[in-house]
Amino acid sequence: MTTLEIMQRVKAASKKLTAFSSEDKNRALFCMAQALQENAETILAANAVDLANAQGKISDVMLDRLRLTKARIDAMAQGVGDVAKLDDPTGELLDSHTRADGLEIRKISVPLGVIAIIYESRPNVTSDAAALAIKSGNACILRCGKEAHGSAAAITKAMQEGLTAAGLPQEAVMLVEDTSRESANELMTGNGYIDLLIPRGGKGLISACVKNATVPCIETGTGICHIYVDKDADLEKALNIVENAKTSRPSVCNAAEVCLIDRAIAETFVPMLEKRLTEREIPVELRMDEICLAYAKNAKPAGETDFDTEFLDYILAVAAVDGVQGAAAHIDAHSTHHSEAIVTENEQAADFFCGAVDSAAVYVNASTRFTDGGEFGLGCEMGISTQKLHARGPMGLAELTTYKYVIRGNGNVR
Amino acid sequence: MTTLEIMQRVKAASKKLTAFSSEDKNRALFCMAQALQENAETILAANAVDLANAQGKISDVMLDRLRLTKARIDAMAQGVGDVAKLDDPTGELLDSHTRADGLEIRKISVPLGVIAIIYESRPNVTSDAAALAIKSGNACILRCGKEAHGSAAAITKAMQEGLTAAGLPQEAVMLVEDTSRESANELMTGNGYIDLLIPRGGKGLISACVKNATVPCIETGTGICHIYVDKDADLEKALNIVENAKTSRPSVCNAAEVCLIDRAIAETFVPMLEKRLTEREIPVELRMDEICLAYAKNAKPAGETDFDTEFLDYILAVAAVDGVQGAAAHIDAHSTHHSEAIVTENEQAADFFCGAVDSAAVYVNASTRFTDGGEFGLGCEMGISTQKLHARGPMGLAELTTYKYVIRGNGNVR
Repeated sequence: MTTLEIMQRVKAASKKLTAFSSEDKNRALFCMAQALQENAETILAANAVDLANAQGKISDVMLDRLRLTKARIDAMAQGVGDVAKLDDPTGELLDSHTRADGLEIRKISVPLGVIAIIYESRPNVTSDAAALAIKSGNACILRCGKEAHGSAAAITKAMQEGLTAAGLPQEAVMLVEDTSRESANELMTGNGYIDLLIPRGGKGLISACVKNATVPCIETGTGICHIYVDKDADLEKALNIVENAKTSRPSVCNAAEVCLIDRAIAETFVPMLEKRLTEREIPVELRMDEICLAYAKNAKPAGETDFDTEFLDYILAVAAVDGVQGAAAHIDAHSTHHSEAIVTENEQAADFFCGAVDSAAVYVNASTRFTDGGEFGLGCEMGISTQKLHARGPMGLAELTTYKYVIRGNGNVR
Repeated sequence: MTTLEIMQRVKAASKKLTAFSSEDKNRALFCMAQALQENAETILAANAVDLANAQGKISDVMLDRLRLTKARIDAMAQGVGDVAKLDDPTGELLDSHTRADGLEIRKISVPLGVIAIIYESRPNVTSDAAALAIKSGNACILRCGKEAHGSAAAITKAMQEGLTAAGLPQEAVMLVEDTSRESANELMTGNGYIDLLIPRGGKGLISACVKNATVPCIETGTGICHIYVDKDADLEKALNIVENAKTSRPSVCNAAEVCLIDRAIAETFVPMLEKRLTEREIPVELRMDEICLAYAKNAKPAGETDFDTEFLDYILAVAAVDGVQGAAAHIDAHSTHHSEAIVTENEQAADFFCGAVDSAAVYVNASTRFTDGGEFGLGCEMGISTQKLHARGPMGLAELTTYKYVIRGNGNVR
């Protein structure tokens, strides 16, 4: 089927969705979760083919993103079921007032319509996105990278079985068949069919969407996240936070890529950091600016692009800065405005950092790895917005709705 | 000054703005209002030059938009002062929770940063936009059409005097000097300088922004608004509402452009409508489909584009439709999703219309002319969004903010 035909069908399905109640949508989610588990073997077989084809073509970290296991499918099904338990974000009365002339103005949350998601090699995005879309009354078009296409097709088929079983239109969730760049461009310019485009993936994909999309689009996920270790930091906390932010899952966007060290403590902290991050099972490669390098044993000098790179790997760029103001200035110049942390026991420094750093999530004495819909209590997540419009940070259900004003009068004129 | 230099200066000013309190910003607004009135003569003189240059080049309706009077300047100053009285939309705790592990997550409203407004011939947009931007902690770049440039420059100068008098950076409000298309393109692609672009004007401007903008942009204001007169309408209410929606200010986006009539009452209602709209001081030109034309005396037949045109003039397109479902289908095909009304005493028809019509504002028995920030109780307005992302309908102060998550822990790792 062409991408245009898919957009037309999903748009038509989105209009039918408005007729279904919260209970209908929840029933569909339970059926979708069940269908995922019933089709686990088929999905794993498709994933095995994807993995075999990708072997040697993508990094080990990316292969890890692509890999499904029975446990991961169970987690996906669990995730879909959990979404059913959340409150319906549509039909909520957000605001209302009655004017002196009797005109009653009500602001009500409604679905966006059609959400398109362009993603790369994580098959679980397929079910996460479909579940959040259906729960919020939206239809969705999924377009994944060619590495994961077989897995995504098998997952989509299961989702559609679930929709059909629950009596909802199966075309409310469709996967784009064409994996060439052309299909992505068609979605980016699908005005009239697409109400929101969410790219989830690397820098190249995001900037292509920002540059070419004529449909409303939310920039997501590129995370050059910084941890700033202040002179007033508890250095043990700092080591734990940097290690966790860098190594607990390096392939995700909330992993830290840069550690900034207050110049005043560089001499003390750099050797501690080097010891902690290099003497471990999987050592972290450290790329340091000149100041820090002087206090390290085996670190590499940082190259020109190292402070502007989302490594998504066991690599950390390290630089010295002049206190919290220097940290804020460095972040202002290099951040993707995703998540940044300060480690300090000094309340004033913490407050300054939280005010000055213009990122979706700003942390004091905690790892950037918490920037996640689940961790933030949203139940699930459709991506992490790094822009300021509509949604910022983890996007859950509320971020997939818009609102309309419904105004009732009795012949009122202005 | 080049447009790039202006973007750089405004961006720099936006960072300074975060240091000012609500009281500082309010003082600035009072100074801006005062400066407007003190400079009224200069502004009127500049406006007289703009009007003389525009004479014969733009329609009477557009000339009316361009024209300033002492009363309009007083109203502008009043508007700026009124904004000071509204609540500060920033620094608001939108949500917060503390996790079991002690991590405290707070969601706080913050300014967007820099807002760019591209507008056409309404000089009052200059002070409206500047006031809303400053109140919400944003800096703003204004870029108006060449017809209004002299007036806008005089108004901007007054605004800057007010900012300086209050101790705020005067470069927080700047007018682009270049009135060629190039400067608009520079704003549309000013990534890194512009956090939100709001085009306010005709269809050509809006679609140029939607097509070319790589910065986040909100579609505004093109209003092909419909009034549907149901078979169960109170016809006297219907006449009042249609006349008000069409004629009370035809040049604005919430004016009605199309009247849809339930086929079941076309024979009765068309003659009443013709009488009401043509036997008045400024008669309305009616352009009707075949069915309605048969019941009219002097109406013109509607041409191919008449149901897709924002006339902004004393012209109304009229068509018969098959009941409320026919009305919803016509609106789905032709609306710009701004404001639509149903006139009916039938609750079921009203409910169906409110659910099926996917527009920012949906009215029952009231004129579409109420879609306005002031009328909706927002105090002022930055434009009317016809898209679904971030803001829909009239945009007030809250719509000019974003939020950030501030998370405090005690060494928490994931």
